Amino acid sequence: MKELVQQKLRHKGLQQKIMTAEEAASYIQHGMAVGMSGFTRAGDVKAIPVALAERAKVEPFQIDVYTGASTGPEIDTVMTEAGVIRRRGPYQGAAAMRKKVNEGTVIYADAHLSHTPELVRQGIYGPLDVAVIEASAITADGYLIPTTSLGNSPIYVEQAKAVFIELNVAHTSQLEGIHDVYVPKQWGEREPIPLMKAHDRIGTIGIPLDIDKVKGIVITNIPDVPSPITPSDEETDAMARHLLEFLRSEIQEGRMTEQLPPLQAGVGAVANAVMRGFKESEFNMLNLYSEVLQDAMFELIEAGKVNIASGASITLSEEMSDAVFRDFARYAPHVILRPQEISNHPELIRRLGLIAINTALEVDIYGNVNSTHVCGTKMMNGIGGSGDFARNARLGIFVTKSAAKNGDVSSIVPMVSHHDHTEHDVDIIVTEQGVADLRGLAPKERVGRIIEHCAHPDYREALWAYYQDACEVAGNHHLPHRLDKALSWHTRLIETGSMKVKQFV
Amino acid sequence: MKELVQQKLRHKGLQQKIMTAEEAASYIQHGMAVGMSGFTRAGDVKAIPVALAERAKVEPFQIDVYTGASTGPEIDTVMTEAGVIRRRGPYQGAAAMRKKVNEGTVIYADAHLSHTPELVRQGIYGPLDVAVIEASAITADGYLIPTTSLGNSPIYVEQAKAVFIELNVAHTSQLEGIHDVYVPKQWGEREPIPLMKAHDRIGTIGIPLDIDKVKGIVITNIPDVPSPITPSDEETDAMARHLLEFLRSEIQEGRMTEQLPPLQAGVGAVANAVMRGFKESEFNMLNLYSEVLQDAMFELIEAGKVNIASGASITLSEEMSDAVFRDFARYAPHVILRPQEISNHPELIRRLGLIAINTALEVDIYGNVNSTHVCGTKMMNGIGGSGDFARNARLGIFVTKSAAKNGDVSSIVPMVSHHDHTEHDVDIIVTEQGVADLRGLAPKERVGRIIEHCAHPDYREALWAYYQDACEVAGNHHLPHRLDKALSWHTRLIETGSMKVKQFV
Repeated sequence: MKELVQQKLRHKGLQQKIMTAEEAASYIQHGMAVGMSGFTRAGDVKAIPVALAERAKVEPFQIDVYTGASTGPEIDTVMTEAGVIRRRGPYQGAAAMRKKVNEGTVIYADAHLSHTPELVRQGIYGPLDVAVIEASAITADGYLIPTTSLGNSPIYVEQAKAVFIELNVAHTSQLEGIHDVYVPKQWGEREPIPLMKAHDRIGTIGIPLDIDKVKGIVITNIPDVPSPITPSDEETDAMARHLLEFLRSEIQEGRMTEQLPPLQAGVGAVANAVMRGFKESEFNMLNLYSEVLQDAMFELIEAGKVNIASGASITLSEEMSDAVFRDFARYAPHVILRPQEISNHPELIRRLGLIAINTALEVDIYGNVNSTHVCGTKMMNGIGGSGDFARNARLGIFVTKSAAKNGDVSSIVPMVSHHDHTEHDVDIIVTEQGVADLRGLAPKERVGRIIEHCAHPDYREALWAYYQDACEVAGNHHLPHRLDKALSWHTRLIETGSMKVKQFV
Repeated sequence: MKELVQQKLRHKGLQQKIMTAEEAASYIQHGMAVGMSGFTRAGDVKAIPVALAERAKVEPFQIDVYTGASTGPEIDTVMTEAGVIRRRGPYQGAAAMRKKVNEGTVIYADAHLSHTPELVRQGIYGPLDVAVIEASAITADGYLIPTTSLGNSPIYVEQAKAVFIELNVAHTSQLEGIHDVYVPKQWGEREPIPLMKAHDRIGTIGIPLDIDKVKGIVITNIPDVPSPITPSDEETDAMARHLLEFLRSEIQEGRMTEQLPPLQAGVGAVANAVMRGFKESEFNMLNLYSEVLQDAMFELIEAGKVNIASGASITLSEEMSDAVFRDFARYAPHVILRPQEISNHPELIRRLGLIAINTALEVDIYGNVNSTHVCGTKMMNGIGGSGDFARNARLGIFVTKSAAKNGDVSSIVPMVSHHDHTEHDVDIIVTEQGVADLRGLAPKERVGRIIEHCAHPDYREALWAYYQDACEVAGNHHLPHRLDKALSWHTRLIETGSMKVKQFV
């Protein structure tokens, strides 16, 4: 262990700063704003959060916690349950945190993931007191080599008054070299981001440290918590088939070539399963310019389908994690991890002309998308990067199964109960039923495409009935709605447990 | 006149292509997709549209018309009333067109203004058959010098199979030199846009012409139709004061300096009046990186307050137009016109760190903004550039008077009836009542700021009552709403003519 630490902690001046997690945690005081590493469970800090939770049992205190995105259990479960977290941003995805967010006992401000570094720079979260960042190594010249995510770590290290590092020896040394750290300058001095292809490297292999700001190094040996396995099913297979068919038709139309534009795929089971569809396809040399690199991305690398997979984190199931990190050298040439400001930057998403594939919770007949709030009120996770991508991509594609909860919930509704992506940002909808291509269409033209191609057959008639009713009431308007009934499917769901109108015979 | 034409039409090969508007119009056939110059009444084509309308009286036909943004009467009134327009995009603002858009007799697909060139490149509007562009001159080496707007003209000229030019001698020759034409390459070959300051010039002074594609030149002598005078009033003065106070507090917080970041201001009376507030302020050397340069911008230039005013068009009232164009050389050094793809480009808006000021139709208690649809159904104009700016700016500011229609309509509502800008894109709301700073706040935290600082006093109690009611029903949720009552203010307005609950004593 000691030898391993010496191999990884190569900066002489930092070796004397090794301390326990409890010692590090004692620096963090009530009311502080703390930036922690971690993006979709990957590369989050693990020891200091637990030490903070332990301390809070004796001496209650609260802090504001900002991360890259969602984290493993140490932050969003252990710290949350200990009542340590007062404010939280910009994304979460754990049951314990979700409960407190909805109760309002944790104040949660989710944000477009590419926007968070700008909020930090402007001090919107207050001055950042501490950064707590996981490292797989620290180089002799003072660069922090991150682990399985980059997320917001560079901006937290840059902006925080003090930095604590968890040097986690559980991560393979082969991670060194996959990171590409580029941080835009302050406004007023900012230059174009010099990235022109998904595989371009534009920065350094680690995060530059101001050694004086580093107040402690905690040695850990704790693996990332794996994500659940996300099996494909008949419906996700159908969605993948529809997506591939659509891309083929785009090639036929001359809008793209068989060497596809760079692809982004959102986090979660459905997007992962859809990406898996590329494995058996004719498409090769895929360029992924994405956010989270999930199982499917590595299956595609394994299948020889991937030129480059660029993202902000590597988030894998246990099985895939074992396989990938056992011999990461095989994958490393195909992987680049970037800060989320760069993976999700509108400048780059627009320049590269991405195909962006994200998951919808529900879609309405005019193409608005809800990604976050169940029945318009209850927060699931957060908007994440979906807005960064959908707004700026060449193609903003949203995928969802057409129905949920054994058919009691239709994913296609008259009006979404919360708007995350408006009609102007949604180009293509894919369900297991088919594809609705909404590009260039007026609202009334979208209705038929969405109902006929994407809605579950059980709900088509009711959707048409709503639309025809709306046209009678507001037909002489651009976007017919009956405002008194627009959200009635959701109120019926709340009252009866189903969006279906019960027929009493 | 002949001499003037010779001065302006300096390309030898094009002089023989002069024809009448009727001859030019005869080229345009039923079903064609036509790109026309024009952005908020400025620099639109005027003769060929009228000739098309005349021809349609004898021989009915329909075409699809795409412009920069809204136009003067020739396109959106004369052509519309003659029934010539089948599809229209990406923005309109005329009564005749609005009527047909809402009826559905013109199919209208509005879009983020920065997105339209990408739609054209991809052929989403179909292959572009014809471009009809107003010019103030054509240089000896074949550059089309535009007039008072640039808008989408470069992409239409590039992509159309045939180009017709209206050489309008009514415009001052001093316009030559104010344009900066830069068009991004196709995806796959695209480079960073090399603009780093609002005053940077990155392109050519005119639109390069493929001379073989130019099928006709029509000489015209018709001034732009001026926009209505937009007087300030007590409420817009108060909004301007609040905005300036807010900017001062940002300076005090160290988030900006007295040399303000570049400013954008949306089109319309309120935004214009708010910009006017800078005239009497301490702020100098303003950099405007905007879309439409309205009266207030030129009042600011006149007052010596402006370093550069960069936009996609110059749209002035009659009085201001007379003053400005009588001696445009005084203003020209401060003015750059750019294609709307560049004025509104997310890459540049984000890089420059703009302060974006746009007009809201209504705002809800969680900070969502409706910019387009009255009571969620009736299209006013279109989303325009507001989404390009609000999403990507340093500060997304929305301004609106707190009430309309003699107090019968509250601009602050429980839930907006149409979502153009979501809670994540709205940083600051300004009404004559005050400023709500929503940055970094959770939904429940925004409610008080918006109601207390921005809502009209007549509606505050009812807004609180809605929120408290929602909390009782869905209080254990992140974003409390009563879905059965969320849109009830709008249904009451439709039914009774007022959002106020009538008290019968």
